[in-house]
Amino acid sequence: MIPNATDAGGAELSKVFEHIDANKDRFVSRLLDYLRHPSISAHNIGIGEVAELLLGMLSRLGFEARTFPTSGHPIVMGRWAHAPGAPTVLLYGHYDVQPPDPLEAWISPPFEPTIRDGRIYARGAGDSKGQHFAQILAIESHLAVHGRLPCNVLFLLEGEEETGSPHIAEFVRTHRDLLKADLVVTADGPMHESDRPVIKYGVRGIAAFELRARAANRDVHSGIFGGAVPNPIWTLVHLLATMKNAAGKITIDGFHDDIVPPTDLERTMAARLPLDVANMKRELGLAMLDAPADRPLADRLMFHPTLTINGFHGGYGGPGSKTVLPHEAFVKCDVRLVERQTPDDVFAKIEAHIKRHAPDVELVRLEGILPSKTPLDSPFSEVVQRAVRTGQGVEPLIYPVTGGSLPEYVFTKILGAHSFVVPYANADEANHAPNENIKIDCFLKGVRTGAALLDALGRCKSSKAPIFAPAEPTGQTQI
Amino acid sequence: MIPNATDAGGAELSKVFEHIDANKDRFVSRLLDYLRHPSISAHNIGIGEVAELLLGMLSRLGFEARTFPTSGHPIVMGRWAHAPGAPTVLLYGHYDVQPPDPLEAWISPPFEPTIRDGRIYARGAGDSKGQHFAQILAIESHLAVHGRLPCNVLFLLEGEEETGSPHIAEFVRTHRDLLKADLVVTADGPMHESDRPVIKYGVRGIAAFELRARAANRDVHSGIFGGAVPNPIWTLVHLLATMKNAAGKITIDGFHDDIVPPTDLERTMAARLPLDVANMKRELGLAMLDAPADRPLADRLMFHPTLTINGFHGGYGGPGSKTVLPHEAFVKCDVRLVERQTPDDVFAKIEAHIKRHAPDVELVRLEGILPSKTPLDSPFSEVVQRAVRTGQGVEPLIYPVTGGSLPEYVFTKILGAHSFVVPYANADEANHAPNENIKIDCFLKGVRTGAALLDALGRCKSSKAPIFAPAEPTGQTQI
Repeated sequence: MIPNATDAGGAELSKVFEHIDANKDRFVSRLLDYLRHPSISAHNIGIGEVAELLLGMLSRLGFEARTFPTSGHPIVMGRWAHAPGAPTVLLYGHYDVQPPDPLEAWISPPFEPTIRDGRIYARGAGDSKGQHFAQILAIESHLAVHGRLPCNVLFLLEGEEETGSPHIAEFVRTHRDLLKADLVVTADGPMHESDRPVIKYGVRGIAAFELRARAANRDVHSGIFGGAVPNPIWTLVHLLATMKNAAGKITIDGFHDDIVPPTDLERTMAARLPLDVANMKRELGLAMLDAPADRPLADRLMFHPTLTINGFHGGYGGPGSKTVLPHEAFVKCDVRLVERQTPDDVFAKIEAHIKRHAPDVELVRLEGILPSKTPLDSPFSEVVQRAVRTGQGVEPLIYPVTGGSLPEYVFTKILGAHSFVVPYANADEANHAPNENIKIDCFLKGVRTGAALLDALGRCKSSKAPIFAPAEPTGQTQI
Repeated sequence: MIPNATDAGGAELSKVFEHIDANKDRFVSRLLDYLRHPSISAHNIGIGEVAELLLGMLSRLGFEARTFPTSGHPIVMGRWAHAPGAPTVLLYGHYDVQPPDPLEAWISPPFEPTIRDGRIYARGAGDSKGQHFAQILAIESHLAVHGRLPCNVLFLLEGEEETGSPHIAEFVRTHRDLLKADLVVTADGPMHESDRPVIKYGVRGIAAFELRARAANRDVHSGIFGGAVPNPIWTLVHLLATMKNAAGKITIDGFHDDIVPPTDLERTMAARLPLDVANMKRELGLAMLDAPADRPLADRLMFHPTLTINGFHGGYGGPGSKTVLPHEAFVKCDVRLVERQTPDDVFAKIEAHIKRHAPDVELVRLEGILPSKTPLDSPFSEVVQRAVRTGQGVEPLIYPVTGGSLPEYVFTKILGAHSFVVPYANADEANHAPNENIKIDCFLKGVRTGAALLDALGRCKSSKAPIFAPAEPTGQTQI
């Protein structure tokens, strides 16, 4: 399955792959060791210890390594900068994990890594200790075989991803110089459900908010006061109905003004993705997709913003009937943003909309993440695709955008670098759930993919307009 | 304050009032005894014992009395039918009480009746043991003074009013002959906040229902699936927005078809009521009343139906943001009905409306009570008003309709009798709340009012077209 490295990467990579193959049992065993250390950011368990562990690993590889404190959990940074003229890749990951609850649902304990049926079961196995540990082993393998790396590497590992990365943007803004890189690669998340590798070029942003309505100073009787006292639930219903119509069109004034439509290439690549509407409908028990009915699935998930009501609560919710006219209610919503919408601008437009339609409703801004998109024709596009193809042995699926929101914008918009998300974990990794796991095969292919990436980048010139030096099947490579 | 009975009721009533005055301390003491017996229908506590108590009281007064079992709690019936040619009044009340929780909020325990500042504090003091006990004492006083009652009396006391009177309609339908009466009088609820007595001629009905929407078979991620998977909260928002518009108009097709507009007399009487919009706004902290803005308060509460959302629940309701796309949601609503809307017809119209606008939404019918209205020019109108004026010493306020829903229709629509609600309790009786109470003065005026009612009815001819025989200020009265 795994192609001979020489197909794409030349002799140097071939030797690295041989090293990985020869050490695979030891690599798995060392991952098990790493996974034994809890690092639960939400509960502040084990964070400092695991940051120290990583600092040691990077130092032993010859990286200049240090931890940067934040007002939350520390960021671990490592730098290897001995490949002048070659590009610099920033490898991003996070060393914190989700809480393991509910514990009773785990077949083997979350911090006692266990191998069953070719998978390593442990909290963090997929998300994302197994993935950045694969990157570390890829670096180690290059160094073991060649005594040097083919390109410059920055390693950025944060300890707060599972609590919303509250400090990463500020850190990147402050340390822009230290983080100067030609591209960013993140190994996180799952591959396609077919286990085909994917490369994600963009993510939608998010603007999450709450709308709060109040009327009387207390709940009143719907008979004695009904018809006289305003109802905050009706206020919110009528306000919401002015924000998105039943045909699925968001009708907040100016909402679509800043949207840049997808490029032809993005449309073409999106159309090629094996998105199976019938399967999604069957799996979720849906008779039809959301309005509008005629929009292709890829367009829905990549190129259109959304306005989702996450929750609506007000008044009586118990069994049977209660004749109450409630005095307060709230809705929680999130808008998924596409380029070039910004949370601030969207919040301002919602605020203006509310002022016109329901001025007494309070808007509470909850969370904002900018969208991010790396062009499909990025000068690093072919390098990254080639590396994934070489490491995984199969053509990757190209996602111009994915629906969920990650803080990729800190790399593309703050750092100004192209950013690629290249997941190594199997689609059924059960991240955030009991029995989280990574297939050993996926982990080892991840190590190979990391190694192939370094190799492929070593064949480029630096500074964002790399001239790709094609690999010579058996000969020497020009850098 | 209390006028000499001879002003309106002649010598017979005057003597009954003297008896009441002479026995007032004993009457209060006996009410305290009665209130010591819990009768919590929702928890099935003390119901049988209190039904037996009432049976004994009515029997000792010379009533034919019995209890009728239902599939819930028993109904206590009493009949005194020894006034041939005089009308028959059906006195309705309920002997069950609300649960007393939260107990810690009571200054004195709910079933240890305590007098403070001229009020009797106990669960049931106002709602409605104190009120039907006043009727019993009115009867007792007539019998003590004259050895007979001026009219025929049926007493109907149910034990399930606080749990929605689930069996009263069936009971009245089955026992139509036994319950044959010229009019029904109910002493329940509060007087006006000024302590002025009121007579309620009608009540709005109710059609309570739940709307349930489901989309996927589980909650999904709003980023990964947002734009593709339908959102049941949006479905309900858009459906609700088609049922009532932001201007306050109910827009369910055919909803207003059966509504009979109020008569000129009803409008005139409603306009005379001291409904204080400014005070309501101040007391409830409202900047304005509900839409539409230009509707008089009396019209809102009496002559227009409502569509109130009692509760809306779906999705995330905790702190901060959660990027979930919920898979189910529900709203609870009640429609207050006016003549001649019926719950069945309104449910059918809502069902047809849903079929057109959101066919996957499920309608669950919860509760239906028909509206009820006794004409202001009822032949008993003057009799009842005169009795209240005589008993209370002040002109009653006439409510053509009140906003809340009571099962008055079982009397007006099933029994075909005119029905009058004549509350004896003070407006701040705190029914359904801790520290429920009745002012001793209100209780004793209630006894007088009950006595005045029997007296006034004794001056009428029977059979729904009474010829009122005006009282002679000092002389004998023709029956």
